[in-house]
Amino acid sequence: MAGPKKIIIDTDPGIDDAMAIFLALRSPEVDVIGMTTIYGNVYTSLATRNALHLLEVAGRTDIPVAEGSHVSYMKATKLRVADFVHGVDGLGNQNFPQPKSKPIEKSAAEYLVEQANLYPGEVTLVALGPLTNIALAIELDPGFTKNIGQIVILGGAFAVNGNVNPAAEANIFGDPEAADIVFTCGADIVAVGINVTHQVILTDNQRDIMAESDGLFANYLCKILEYYFSYHRDAYSMKGVYLHDPTALIAAVNPSLMTYTEGVVRVQTSGITRGLTLFYNKQKRFHEETEWCNKPTVKVAVTVDAPAVVKLVMDRLMHS
Amino acid sequence: MAGPKKIIIDTDPGIDDAMAIFLALRSPEVDVIGMTTIYGNVYTSLATRNALHLLEVAGRTDIPVAEGSHVSYMKATKLRVADFVHGVDGLGNQNFPQPKSKPIEKSAAEYLVEQANLYPGEVTLVALGPLTNIALAIELDPGFTKNIGQIVILGGAFAVNGNVNPAAEANIFGDPEAADIVFTCGADIVAVGINVTHQVILTDNQRDIMAESDGLFANYLCKILEYYFSYHRDAYSMKGVYLHDPTALIAAVNPSLMTYTEGVVRVQTSGITRGLTLFYNKQKRFHEETEWCNKPTVKVAVTVDAPAVVKLVMDRLMHS
Repeated sequence: MAGPKKIIIDTDPGIDDAMAIFLALRSPEVDVIGMTTIYGNVYTSLATRNALHLLEVAGRTDIPVAEGSHVSYMKATKLRVADFVHGVDGLGNQNFPQPKSKPIEKSAAEYLVEQANLYPGEVTLVALGPLTNIALAIELDPGFTKNIGQIVILGGAFAVNGNVNPAAEANIFGDPEAADIVFTCGADIVAVGINVTHQVILTDNQRDIMAESDGLFANYLCKILEYYFSYHRDAYSMKGVYLHDPTALIAAVNPSLMTYTEGVVRVQTSGITRGLTLFYNKQKRFHEETEWCNKPTVKVAVTVDAPAVVKLVMDRLMHS
Repeated sequence: MAGPKKIIIDTDPGIDDAMAIFLALRSPEVDVIGMTTIYGNVYTSLATRNALHLLEVAGRTDIPVAEGSHVSYMKATKLRVADFVHGVDGLGNQNFPQPKSKPIEKSAAEYLVEQANLYPGEVTLVALGPLTNIALAIELDPGFTKNIGQIVILGGAFAVNGNVNPAAEANIFGDPEAADIVFTCGADIVAVGINVTHQVILTDNQRDIMAESDGLFANYLCKILEYYFSYHRDAYSMKGVYLHDPTALIAAVNPSLMTYTEGVVRVQTSGITRGLTLFYNKQKRFHEETEWCNKPTVKVAVTVDAPAVVKLVMDRLMHS
């Protein structure tokens, strides 16, 4: 199996989603065969609109977009949407035109199942939002967990505070029930949590360097990044932004830039720590049976070569 | 206020509780003015019996023992008791004689409130078991949180796996509702969790050194420690034991052997992570109000000079 790795990006664009999508399109190691959309940074309809728009900007309307779920796995319609991070349009309030292209007829879950069956073991799914579509794909076809090559999840806060509240990271908090299904489904899973992505920062100086390049993507992104920088100044008192989604994408493109540990991850679904991801390191034999027993393990990123990731992201996005 | 610090030990003896109690009795920095008992390593009745027995061994029957709650704060009677760690008698199955002395008439909560009122700001309460008695003291007298000098809590697993299950440490798991009340009560609180106590190990070689000393306490403890070593071999594959309770006692005796961070701690009370302690580091301003907002902060131990703690424990216990 030579040639680039087939990837599908499940996404809620989102400013750093846009960075990750453009990065994927400029990465020879991967071939983006499709995109699916989900709520998170925006509602699902807007995520679909933005995904189509970004592909038009990139001149890649050949890539199909399948619209994902408008409700959580438990059918909740009251969703948390982070428009205060990404702007009400999800792309920094830039008044971009409506895209001309349309999503395909299939739902995200149907499309994911179809592609996993078409290319068994070959497709890497990079999940950049809440995990609703992936849980629905597993429900639709239990064979999905075997047929999908790998699922790279941007999500979780492993042994650190969350970013929605002290317990939970936004993507997992968006649909904790779906996340617990996905983490324990038995597929080959790599989770990249904010314990890792909070180490990968694009500074304002680096943004200025990108802004001066003649790269199409760099220029586009520097416009929409203003809103994202402003949020980080307010919430974190920092002159820079976390590269959450691009870092997760790099875990698919160049996994050697991170190190990983392996264990069982469960997601808390109730109470004040709803959405918390809890990794069991297998160092103790417990006296009682626990909720982590007899569950499949996943890989969780623990360290990252942050300067190398930032350089790779900048170089590829500045490429004209 | 010269002179030793007045301390009350709330305890569920327990092999490492016995070490902590003897250590306190040999520490000139503190004056043990009383003890209260609680379930945990054993049921409360046996904890009271063992506390009285240990004071008889030490020749300190002048120290009053007040019996604590037999049920959790929410009145649960199904309690988790760690007899597989400490032996069915809590002291390594040594068939010690029944103590002749008796507990005082007051309950633990009544005694704690009385002493805090008698010596406002002067009493340090060292809590080595589930926090039921302390929550009941707060309920009995809301002024308790102001009158008690400090509460040193052995409990929690901050950013590490628990020891009951991957989420929870045993003392907090024993009564999560009480723990959440205590952590948010506003008293001066220092928490020493297993993230710290798992760094403080008495090796089997160090136990052999203690066994050869002519110290009364060292000799007594080396007999009961056999069971505790055996448990650690099985559960952790280690030739040594964690000095949980002595380390917490040291936080009262010589706080400079640890470093601390300050923030809000809440306890999860439901679901698979029931008993999890979650510390908020205050590094992010969250968009939404969280369950950690507007709660008093506590100090949480983060590093420990483990060799110094082990040396202090050994030296004092070997003293004849």
